[in-house]
Amino acid sequence: MSRLEILRLDASAAGFDAQLDQLLDRAPEQNASVTQTVDAIVADIRRRGDAALLEYTNRFDRRSVSQAAELEIPKAELAAAWQRLPADLRAALEAAAARIRRYAEHQKLADWEFSDELGNRLGQRVTPMDRVGVYVPGGKAAYPSSVLMNVIPAKVAGVPEVIMVVPTPSDAEGHSKPNDAVLGAAHLAGADRVFTIGGAQAVAALAWGTATIPPVDKIVGPGNAYVAAAKRAVFGRVGIDSIAGPSEIVVICDGQTDPRWIAMDLFSQAEHDEDAQSILIAPDIAYLERVAEAMEQRLAELPRAAIVRASLAGRGALIAVRDLAQAAEISNRIAPEHLELSVADPRALLQQIRHAGAVFLGRHAPESFGDYCAGPNHVLPTSRAARFSNPLGVYEFQKRSSLIDCTADGACPLAAIAGRIADAEGLHAHAASARDRS
Amino acid sequence: MSRLEILRLDASAAGFDAQLDQLLDRAPEQNASVTQTVDAIVADIRRRGDAALLEYTNRFDRRSVSQAAELEIPKAELAAAWQRLPADLRAALEAAAARIRRYAEHQKLADWEFSDELGNRLGQRVTPMDRVGVYVPGGKAAYPSSVLMNVIPAKVAGVPEVIMVVPTPSDAEGHSKPNDAVLGAAHLAGADRVFTIGGAQAVAALAWGTATIPPVDKIVGPGNAYVAAAKRAVFGRVGIDSIAGPSEIVVICDGQTDPRWIAMDLFSQAEHDEDAQSILIAPDIAYLERVAEAMEQRLAELPRAAIVRASLAGRGALIAVRDLAQAAEISNRIAPEHLELSVADPRALLQQIRHAGAVFLGRHAPESFGDYCAGPNHVLPTSRAARFSNPLGVYEFQKRSSLIDCTADGACPLAAIAGRIADAEGLHAHAASARDRS
Repeated sequence: MSRLEILRLDASAAGFDAQLDQLLDRAPEQNASVTQTVDAIVADIRRRGDAALLEYTNRFDRRSVSQAAELEIPKAELAAAWQRLPADLRAALEAAAARIRRYAEHQKLADWEFSDELGNRLGQRVTPMDRVGVYVPGGKAAYPSSVLMNVIPAKVAGVPEVIMVVPTPSDAEGHSKPNDAVLGAAHLAGADRVFTIGGAQAVAALAWGTATIPPVDKIVGPGNAYVAAAKRAVFGRVGIDSIAGPSEIVVICDGQTDPRWIAMDLFSQAEHDEDAQSILIAPDIAYLERVAEAMEQRLAELPRAAIVRASLAGRGALIAVRDLAQAAEISNRIAPEHLELSVADPRALLQQIRHAGAVFLGRHAPESFGDYCAGPNHVLPTSRAARFSNPLGVYEFQKRSSLIDCTADGACPLAAIAGRIADAEGLHAHAASARDRS
Repeated sequence: MSRLEILRLDASAAGFDAQLDQLLDRAPEQNASVTQTVDAIVADIRRRGDAALLEYTNRFDRRSVSQAAELEIPKAELAAAWQRLPADLRAALEAAAARIRRYAEHQKLADWEFSDELGNRLGQRVTPMDRVGVYVPGGKAAYPSSVLMNVIPAKVAGVPEVIMVVPTPSDAEGHSKPNDAVLGAAHLAGADRVFTIGGAQAVAALAWGTATIPPVDKIVGPGNAYVAAAKRAVFGRVGIDSIAGPSEIVVICDGQTDPRWIAMDLFSQAEHDEDAQSILIAPDIAYLERVAEAMEQRLAELPRAAIVRASLAGRGALIAVRDLAQAAEISNRIAPEHLELSVADPRALLQQIRHAGAVFLGRHAPESFGDYCAGPNHVLPTSRAARFSNPLGVYEFQKRSSLIDCTADGACPLAAIAGRIADAEGLHAHAASARDRS
């Protein structure tokens, strides 16, 4: 067995900035041929509805569905799938769901209002969306945890109708069989309707609606390049969550955590796929090498060792820094999806962190707790998007309306202000409409 | 003078639903040639930076700038522009800014944390973005109010650096002169740097950065089709606000508001441009005709009467309904940017409203108060996006990080739950990393 390859960098060496830029360089590129294919599918679904949806589903998922209604999985089948799961898995999913729900409750946006000194009332009113779509990838990456993380916040927000779609391509024997754990999780989380469709055609159907698929107001959930391109294409017609890139973790360690733990934390990111990124930053070169040693030893525990090797060799790094302050600075440049602060005083270090999707504080909070059951959402901004965007949450399924409520007396001074600025902007009807109230 | 044309609809008549769909049918279409042009500009700015930015700016804005540094307007010039404004306009802008700031303060997201029953701490931490870009249209639609509405929430959020861009094409005499009211508003609102660039090249420069233009984390502000396409293209690299469509108003009136007021409220939307949409809904056909009559009379007050005529003829409507409940239902289908509830009991009617960007309650709150000075933002979701998105606000310039802080004891039960679900998903490193902490 060859030794595990991983890049070593010294943050204080000349050329480090360029090395880091190169390591991070993976802005989501739009592939022109993917975009073209997806645009054609979206236009076709919009024009031909169910007929086009059936054609694409049969072609891409190698199925032979003749009626669009067959694409729906009845609710009773979701409940049956739940019952077929092993009891200990059901208990684990129930515990996770309860914790996800409890955290989500804290995220709910609330109405507020205040009065100005003129007696006018100003405020913000929060309402749930009417109907949202959750895209759940099928095939090899069929994850019940993703179902919980996407559906529960929507239900906590009060969305009356959550539509889940999950592609279920036929297997070698020609059977199209959805994953029991995924369907069971849909049952547990409270998805209202489930359709076995996927790809750009599913996104287009959710955005525009067909006779069978009801049109939604927002589409969330990860998918391949075609799904991502389709979400970008329908953005504006419906809301979308952020475009998910490969998953990432940065671990900042003071050199005092068991190197075997940190090795496995890095692996838990690397095992996702070859594009996943695992970076360890420590003010202690000897410690970095102890972690590298532990990685060598523990790789044998993993059936997915080949993916882990490729991910670490292609995108991983061990970065030696002067001190934890420099570690925080580098982490802010990376703006990682997941950040472990495996140090003695994580709260002090947190004060220096500006951008991260989720922060895991201390030696006893590995990223995988966040992936499954700590409570916060595991759908997090990737590819440096933590600079400007949020974890998926209840607030992504609510929206705000501004309220402006004026009295006859309170309106007069506003009429004068609005009238004067409208004059300056040359908008005469605005000025007149304001002054009508004075 | 020809009579003013506006569509009359009866919500209880057969075929109304189709008529309404047709009236609203203006989903933002992507024009392939615009997209292609914009993609080329974005790629060129990314590759050649300042050199490309200068070329496009000189070409599209008919300028002759030789050094990229000349594209920046020094802060002293912003202050000078402010001082050149008439005193009463300065007073009006100051009053508006104070009210916008006060409302914005209410929108700030806050940190929170709670403990679970195991002693683990879970929470959410809120931080401002590092640097944002505000696009301000130039030319005929140079609005100081837009500067206030875009810059103030970013500064209230705590964004250290707000970069404003405003195209300043040369006039017939070859002079490129920014609008004093726009620069003065930038001074008042606290924009940190201002550049006289626009179009897709400005959006690309903000997203990728050049030697002169610093890269930002998010770009907000309205623009033409090229600006909208550029924002869509850079989405993911940076955050963007929603893609702005034509402006809209729905007025629901019980027939008791002075028809002359409602006429001018509808005009104040219609005067924006020919694509703007003004719709009045009332349970009283005679009242609708009185408003139509008032529109005929008051049109003479307006220098922009031609635009108003075109907008009302092309996209306006007077809709007769059975009662206010039916009016609310139709309004929910429209999900308007602006909604006036010009009725005796607007609070009761508000309970039936699900989707609207801003709601103006009562007869004394015309939309133009919201456009300038009531306090809430005038950047609102258009083209039915109020179904899923928010007014621009402080929260658009802040982002959340999830916090997961476990104790050694508190970690054990989580390790068991995470381990079990990870087993089911076939993610062995996730399971092992979790179980290391048990």
